[in-house]
Amino acid sequence: NHIIVTGFGTSGQEAVNELLARGTDPREIVVIDGNEKALALAEAQGCNILCGDSTRDKTLKDVAIHRARNMIVSAGRDDTSILITLTARHLAPRLPISIVVRNEDNELPARQAGATTVINPVSFAGLLLAGSTSGRHIADYMTDLAATGGRIKLNERAVLPQEIGGPLSAIKTGIGLRIYREDRPIGFWEEGAARLQTGDLIIEVTEGDDGKSDK
Amino acid sequence: NHIIVTGFGTSGQEAVNELLARGTDPREIVVIDGNEKALALAEAQGCNILCGDSTRDKTLKDVAIHRARNMIVSAGRDDTSILITLTARHLAPRLPISIVVRNEDNELPARQAGATTVINPVSFAGLLLAGSTSGRHIADYMTDLAATGGRIKLNERAVLPQEIGGPLSAIKTGIGLRIYREDRPIGFWEEGAARLQTGDLIIEVTEGDDGKSDK
Ligand SMILES: [Ca+2]
Ligand SMILES: [Ca+2]
Repeated sequence: NHIIVTGFGTSGQEAVNELLARGTDPREIVVIDGNEKALALAEAQGCNILCGDSTRDKTLKDVAIHRARNMIVSAGRDDTSILITLTARHLAPRLPISIVVRNEDNELPARQAGATTVINPVSFAGLLLAGSTSGRHIADYMTDLAATGGRIKLNERAVLPQEIGGPLSAIKTGIGLRIYREDRPIGFWEEGAARLQTGDLIIEVTEGDDGKSDK
Repeated sequence: NHIIVTGFGTSGQEAVNELLARGTDPREIVVIDGNEKALALAEAQGCNILCGDSTRDKTLKDVAIHRARNMIVSAGRDDTSILITLTARHLAPRLPISIVVRNEDNELPARQAGATTVINPVSFAGLLLAGSTSGRHIADYMTDLAATGGRIKLNERAVLPQEIGGPLSAIKTGIGLRIYREDRPIGFWEEGAARLQTGDLIIEVTEGDDGKSDK
């Protein structure tokens, strides 16, 4: 029940920093990289490390991929990241795998390789740049939303028993933004949001970890 | 009253694509780059182009920077982007400038150089990677929020006259998430959100441009 991080370049490091900021125990993180120097950084943070090639079955088996709860793939090259994803998906059919790709053309192949979540930093930067021209606080709000620290955070959780039957707008934990019902998104303005059902997943914005201490 | 885009690499191109998706007239965009090939792409999209070095006063004066409404800086190298920002800030003290930096250490210098908004794609990718481990829809929701297409979008706007005196939660245009009052953020859970005031800026999530056509 651990998180595997393959590739400990800047994105991998930022991901681990944020996982630790979210309260993840570093002993639940296993970092794989071919570079001993990068691994020394991970080890200094208390993470488990393995020097190896994550495109090989053996490496992923060595970190007990079948028991992992999440995998983060950011190998620095899209081809390597996609091959790691293919290998991991083959060994762990249900593991949630998040991959970073840098080239837009590789987003679809990454999904085809079995990635659950595909993140393209360049494309995201373009969206934030454009967004910032329509409001000077947009990019800052997005950054605050993505990070668990700061004033707010975006949260995904299962519906609570006492919420079932009520509208999304009535939840007490934060502001309900979207429901996933049988994996289909339902917006706050849609009919389906008027009555929460068993099995719903809720996307909400809640106070961030720093916001709480403000109170 | 135009938007200046300096640097037409992948981030600059993605920014222009998103500006066009948001309905910006390409004739209101001026793209500056030293590379004629990159500029040909921008020209094909209907943008104005200038082949030149954006770190020079003359180049920025040639695109009438004093009359621009926004500037996007993504030169591919942090040092170049920061120098462009310094030059632009000197020529246009109030222009909103958004800059992409790739190294976290350069975020502060970019602000010191006068950038209004600093975007670090690598750091953002790390946040999204970590976020994706706590909910499989988090990264997709964030991407939808950042882009004007799709089901939803994040919007910043001035308070409307008829909203003044009422609570943030009563706005009809979307879901109110945050107020900026004299540049200070006020969360939806805070006292200040109970009564909107003249001059408030509202951050809201609204239906996206595709969501609307769903209805
Ligand atoms: Ca936050
Ligand atoms: Ca959207």
